[in-house]
Amino acid sequence: MNHKEGSIRQLLRVPVGPVDVLRDFDAGANPGFPKDKGKNDVAQLNDQLDPEIDYRQEQMYAEGLQNPESAPSILLVLQGLDTAGKGGVIRHVIGMIDPSGVKIHAFKKPTEEELRHDFLWRIRKALPSPGDIGIFDRSHYEDVLVQRVEKLAPPEEIERRYGAINEFEAELVAGGTHLVKCFLHVSKGEQRERLLARLRNPEKYYKYNPGDVDTALKYDEYMTAYNIALTRCNTEFAPWFLVPSDDKWYRNWAIAQLLLETLETLQLGWPGADFDLEAERARVQALATK
Amino acid sequence: MNHKEGSIRQLLRVPVGPVDVLRDFDAGANPGFPKDKGKNDVAQLNDQLDPEIDYRQEQMYAEGLQNPESAPSILLVLQGLDTAGKGGVIRHVIGMIDPSGVKIHAFKKPTEEELRHDFLWRIRKALPSPGDIGIFDRSHYEDVLVQRVEKLAPPEEIERRYGAINEFEAELVAGGTHLVKCFLHVSKGEQRERLLARLRNPEKYYKYNPGDVDTALKYDEYMTAYNIALTRCNTEFAPWFLVPSDDKWYRNWAIAQLLLETLETLQLGWPGADFDLEAERARVQALATK
Repeated sequence: MNHKEGSIRQLLRVPVGPVDVLRDFDAGANPGFPKDKGKNDVAQLNDQLDPEIDYRQEQMYAEGLQNPESAPSILLVLQGLDTAGKGGVIRHVIGMIDPSGVKIHAFKKPTEEELRHDFLWRIRKALPSPGDIGIFDRSHYEDVLVQRVEKLAPPEEIERRYGAINEFEAELVAGGTHLVKCFLHVSKGEQRERLLARLRNPEKYYKYNPGDVDTALKYDEYMTAYNIALTRCNTEFAPWFLVPSDDKWYRNWAIAQLLLETLETLQLGWPGADFDLEAERARVQALATK
Repeated sequence: MNHKEGSIRQLLRVPVGPVDVLRDFDAGANPGFPKDKGKNDVAQLNDQLDPEIDYRQEQMYAEGLQNPESAPSILLVLQGLDTAGKGGVIRHVIGMIDPSGVKIHAFKKPTEEELRHDFLWRIRKALPSPGDIGIFDRSHYEDVLVQRVEKLAPPEEIERRYGAINEFEAELVAGGTHLVKCFLHVSKGEQRERLLARLRNPEKYYKYNPGDVDTALKYDEYMTAYNIALTRCNTEFAPWFLVPSDDKWYRNWAIAQLLLETLETLQLGWPGADFDLEAERARVQALATK
């Protein structure tokens, strides 16, 4: 690949310690994007990333089929305010990958049944299998974000969840899952612009929900909730990455790059034959052709 | 699109009545493929199909979000012998579609729990939601194919299943699901060639399973089982399509085309705004930008 290994993982990594998103990060920045390239080069850059991601994803998938007890998996967690582009990332970045190896789960408002269980109950049921890339479109973080802002759970329960999340994620990592938690950061101005764009184009009306404005009005409260989550649940083993997302083209490129670098850290090869190669060749050669 | 509407659906449609696959169909044929084009033009043809499929799939997805009670869904059933290319279709054709609107389910050997239920139990749990394109990588047809050939169920139970499948599929269609049942037909010679290719390339060893040769040795018995299924479960409402699959490039193009034509028959538009457009524009315009 063209990039120095690990560079985007390093550049987007939220440093461990107190986080203040609006003070510390610029939603319009393009960290790590090649200096001599621009928006119009992204399609070509992604066309280069595509086969590299594909190749390494297939190795992980193969490992999952052949050695399910030891094969790794990746869990990409997508969080962000409305319009930040979770759907766009799934369409443009995850769309690069062989769908057989991808398991997407969109978490909506919890159902009655889900509410009767611990908040992690529905999350555990959606985890990727060995060899798979799991995508969470929203996640267990909603239980300390919207639930905190909208006071949908008692304060002491919200408080308990940060530790529960860290324990849960430690358990996932110990089981071979590589967590890539992405906060897609959009500015107030860009969010407003994207909501307006949906109201301008009849083909996008379906994406618009009047409730999005109620949420947008609480932008600062949501940022506070994100600051707490990014401070308290940002561990060495399950790091947060902040993806500046005012530029859609940068956001998509950066997450594709993050995914590729994560796949590269697994250092997988191809699983060897678990059968007698010569004997099988002879059996296949002996098959009738008519 | 360049094609006469419905042409691939008509050309690949298995006629209702007694079927004899090996007598009636050529696995190396390319029905409907533009006469003046060849293998090397497929990438370009698919590049034209891609945005058309995308556009219509997004309309169906939008309908699913906005009108879930009445929105249609599509269920693409992929059946075929080992090496016929079910995985290749998912990678190359389904990979064209926004992953958010696709639900893939691969049916393996039934588990103990699944065996304790009726054969359709696990199938019902994997059906696509309104607005989605569901993909079955193998399906309930395995219960009258491998189960028939390998005698995994009593003959009278196998016999019962053909009628049960027709009733089940009628119920799905009545509920708004459009079934596209594809039999990927490969010849004995091509199957042997593909198995050999897996044994020649260390990157493909993981796809090879010695059991595939045992199955290949029963090619004729499997064809007989397919003949019965394609004869007895080929209804007007849930038709079978036979996709000649010796040429991978043709197979992928044909299924992309089938999918597009099926989406076109739905004649969807974009759902209208279900909110007060002017009032919402005013609310968004009033949002702070800092």
